[in-house]
Amino acid sequence: MKTLLLLRAVLFPALLAVGSAIFAADKPNIVIIFADDLGYGDLGCYGSPTIRTPHLDRMAAEGLRFTDFYSAAEVCTPSRAALLTGRYPIRSGMCGDRRVLFANSAGGLPSAEVTIAEALKPHGYATAHIGKWHLGIHAGGRPLDQGFDHSFGLPYSNDMDGRPGLPRGASGLADPPHDGWNVALLRDGQVVEQPADQTTLTRRYTEDAVQFIREKKDGPFFLYFPHTFPHVPLFASPAFKGKSRAGIYGDTVEELDWSVGRVLDALTKEGVAERTLVFFTSDNGPWLIMGDQGGSGGLLREGKGSTWEGGMRVPGIAWMPGRIRPGVTTELAHAMDLFPTSLALAGAPLPAGVTLDGTDLAPLLFDGKPLPPRPFFYYRGDQLFAARLGEWKAHFKTQTGYGQPKADTHEPPLLFHLGRDPSEKRDAGAGHPEVLAQIQEAVQAHQSGVVPGEPQLK
Amino acid sequence: MKTLLLLRAVLFPALLAVGSAIFAADKPNIVIIFADDLGYGDLGCYGSPTIRTPHLDRMAAEGLRFTDFYSAAEVCTPSRAALLTGRYPIRSGMCGDRRVLFANSAGGLPSAEVTIAEALKPHGYATAHIGKWHLGIHAGGRPLDQGFDHSFGLPYSNDMDGRPGLPRGASGLADPPHDGWNVALLRDGQVVEQPADQTTLTRRYTEDAVQFIREKKDGPFFLYFPHTFPHVPLFASPAFKGKSRAGIYGDTVEELDWSVGRVLDALTKEGVAERTLVFFTSDNGPWLIMGDQGGSGGLLREGKGSTWEGGMRVPGIAWMPGRIRPGVTTELAHAMDLFPTSLALAGAPLPAGVTLDGTDLAPLLFDGKPLPPRPFFYYRGDQLFAARLGEWKAHFKTQTGYGQPKADTHEPPLLFHLGRDPSEKRDAGAGHPEVLAQIQEAVQAHQSGVVPGEPQLK
Repeated sequence: MKTLLLLRAVLFPALLAVGSAIFAADKPNIVIIFADDLGYGDLGCYGSPTIRTPHLDRMAAEGLRFTDFYSAAEVCTPSRAALLTGRYPIRSGMCGDRRVLFANSAGGLPSAEVTIAEALKPHGYATAHIGKWHLGIHAGGRPLDQGFDHSFGLPYSNDMDGRPGLPRGASGLADPPHDGWNVALLRDGQVVEQPADQTTLTRRYTEDAVQFIREKKDGPFFLYFPHTFPHVPLFASPAFKGKSRAGIYGDTVEELDWSVGRVLDALTKEGVAERTLVFFTSDNGPWLIMGDQGGSGGLLREGKGSTWEGGMRVPGIAWMPGRIRPGVTTELAHAMDLFPTSLALAGAPLPAGVTLDGTDLAPLLFDGKPLPPRPFFYYRGDQLFAARLGEWKAHFKTQTGYGQPKADTHEPPLLFHLGRDPSEKRDAGAGHPEVLAQIQEAVQAHQSGVVPGEPQLK
Repeated sequence: MKTLLLLRAVLFPALLAVGSAIFAADKPNIVIIFADDLGYGDLGCYGSPTIRTPHLDRMAAEGLRFTDFYSAAEVCTPSRAALLTGRYPIRSGMCGDRRVLFANSAGGLPSAEVTIAEALKPHGYATAHIGKWHLGIHAGGRPLDQGFDHSFGLPYSNDMDGRPGLPRGASGLADPPHDGWNVALLRDGQVVEQPADQTTLTRRYTEDAVQFIREKKDGPFFLYFPHTFPHVPLFASPAFKGKSRAGIYGDTVEELDWSVGRVLDALTKEGVAERTLVFFTSDNGPWLIMGDQGGSGGLLREGKGSTWEGGMRVPGIAWMPGRIRPGVTTELAHAMDLFPTSLALAGAPLPAGVTLDGTDLAPLLFDGKPLPPRPFFYYRGDQLFAARLGEWKAHFKTQTGYGQPKADTHEPPLLFHLGRDPSEKRDAGAGHPEVLAQIQEAVQAHQSGVVPGEPQLK
C-alpha cells in the first residue's frame, strides 16, 4: 500500500509532466507563409532563370515540393478566405464582381466562418497573423476577431489607399513614388505608422515573425504569414533593391526568399523545426499586365485573375525536417487542404456543421501515400469557370485575368490534358466525350452542395 | 657515387611510375551527354511539372546548373558540329538553307575541322562516340574519321530513311509505326541492325557507354554521348512506355534520365567520378509543331528552329563531385565552350590557326569565378538573326522555327532585357539606343572575323 501511495504521490505528477510535454510535442506548430501575386515560375526550384531563391530552393530540397498545387481563387481576397476557412469562397460570400475587398467595402469574412486560428486556439495554440490581411476592416472580420491573438501588418493590398494626385498606373512603375500610398501599418488593430514605409515591410514582418517563434517556442503555435510582396507597388529594402537581374520584381522576391530563410533558421535555432510544419505558397498567379513588375507563370497559360492554369497553379512547398521525406509530388493539392491538415495535426476536431472543401494532406506529407482522387474547381468570382479531374481540365468559360471584358463560353467545353499539355494549348475535347461527361457529373455534384454565402465584396 | 646510381636505378623508375599516375590523374575524363530536341523546360530541375527526372535533378543538385546555357544553333547538324569543333557552324560550312544533313546529302564535317576527340587523342585519351552522329556519312566526316576510336549508333536522325508507304507526319504520331523507318544501327562504321529497333536504342547506347567507362576507367577517356531521343518518332523501352504523365514524350525523357543515372553510377562505381567532368545539354529547343510529341521551352518563347530563346537556350548541367561546388549559375555559357574547356582540362594546346568561339569554363566550374563578358550570336542557318550582350538581346530578324515561311526584318532591331523579360514579350529598344549600338558593334566585330566555310548542307 505504501508503495502504491508513493507511486501516486511521486510518479503520477511526474507522469503528468511528461504527458504534458508529449502533449505539446504531439501538437506540431504550423507556419503558413503566403506570397502575394507570386507566379508558378518565379522561384529557382520552379525553373526561374532570373530570380535567385536559395532559401526556398533549400526548403524544397529538404521538403516536399508540389508540381500541382492550387490557390483556391484567382485573386487575393477570395484566395485568403478559402485558405483560412478550408472552403471555396462561394460558401463564405468572399467573392463576387468587385473581385476583392476595397478600402471602402462594407463586408468582410463573416464571424460565422471558422478560421484555422479559431479552430486551433481551443487546443492550446498561440496564434499570430503577420503581414497583409485583406479579409475585412470592420468588426467581426478583422484578425483579432478571427482567432488571432496577435496581428501585425497591412489591412489590405499595398496599392489601395492611393494618395491624392497619384497618377493612374503608378503602382506598376519600376520606381513607384515612395509616398504615393497612405496604407496604414497596424499592430493588434492599432495604427502604428501611416503611411507605412513599404521599403521596410518585409524586414519588419520577418523580425516580428522571428520574435513570435522565439516567444512561443514551447508551443504549440500557429503563424499565418501573408507577405505584402511581390504585389505592386514594389518596394525592397536597400539591401535588396537593384540587386536582382530580374529587376525590382526580382528584388522583392529575393527579399521574400531571405525572409523565408530567416523563419526556417529561427525554427531550427529554437530547436522546434522537427515539430513545425511550414507551408509556403502564393495567393494567385502573376499579375501579367504589370509587365516587368509582374511575375511569370513559367510554362503555364495566363496569370492572376484567370482560371487558366497560370492564374491558380502556384508554388507549394511543405517543410518539416525529419518528418517529411524530401521529394517532389505531382499529386493535386490546394490551399483549402491546409485547414483539415492543420486541424488533424493538432488533434482538433473539424468544426461541426461546416462544409469543407479540403482534405488532410498528412498521409501524403509524412507517408508518401497518394491522395484520394478528387475534382478541383476553378472559380472566377462567384462563377465556376473550369474543373479538373485527374489529368483532365474542362473550361466552361475562359477569360484572361485582365483586359478581356467578357468571358467566352464554350459549348462543348474546352478540354486539356494537363500531363501532356500543361500549357493548355491543344483542345482535346472532341476525342474524349466520356471525360467531359465525368467532369460535368463532378461539377453537378459539387454545385448541388453549394449554398452561396451572403456576398461580402459589394 | 654508388648511392646515386642506386637512386637512379631504383627511385627514378618509381618516380616515373608515380609521375605517370599523376599524369593520368591530371587529365580528367570528359563525358558529354547530348539530348536531341529536349526543351529548356523539360527537366524537373528546370521546372517541368510533368516529367520526372530524378537522376538529372540529382546531377544538378550535386553539380552546377546553368540558367543561361545555349546550343550553338537552332537545329541539329549545325549544333553538333559547333559543339565538337568549338566554332560557330558558319565557319565549318555545317549550316545552310537545308538546315541539317539528310540521308542524300553529299557533305559532312570537313576533315580539316578539329573535333574535341581529335584534339584529345594525341594526349592519351580513349575516345568514343555513342548515339546519333548526324555530321556526315561519307569518308572524312564519319565518327572514326573525326577522332573517335569507337562509334556505336545511328548515322543521322531517327525520322530520316522513312520506308515506302510511311504516311506524312507519321513521326509525330503518339504511337508511330515500329517498322516505319529503315535507319541503320552502326558499330564502328558497320551496320549491325537495319532497321534499328528504336525501342532499344537508349538502353543499348547506355550499356555501351557503361562498358566503355569500365574498360577505360584507368583513363583518360572522352565519351561523346548524343542520344537519339526525345527527337520524334518517339520510342521507349517497355520499362518506360506509358509510365509518364507527360505521355510518350515524357516516357522517352524519363528513359534518358535513367540513362544519365546509369552513367553517373558507373563512374562512381569505377571510382572515377571525382576525375570525370560530365556535361549534360541539348542540341536545340523543343520541336513545338509536334504538339504532344514535342517538349516545352518553359517560360521561353518559341522552340527548335528559331532564334527566339526557346530555340537555343537549353538545359546545361556540369558534374564532377568534389571538384565542382554545387549550385546554380546565371553566367552565359554555350556548347562551343566545351571544346576549350575539354582541352584545358587535358592540358592539350588549342589547335594552331583555328578560330574558336568558346571560352574555357574551368574558372567558373571549379572556382566560381565569373566568365569574361562576351557577346553570343544566334544564327538561323548561315544568317545571323540575333545577338546577346550582357542581359540585352537584339533581334535583327525573327522567324518561328517552323511554319513561318519568311523572316521578319526589324529595323531598328527588337531589344529585350532577358533578366526582366526572359520570355521576350516587351520590346525595350526605343529607350536604349546605346545598348543597340554596343550590340551592333559586337556583331560587326564578329562578322569581320568570320570566313564562311564551304557549305556542306547542299
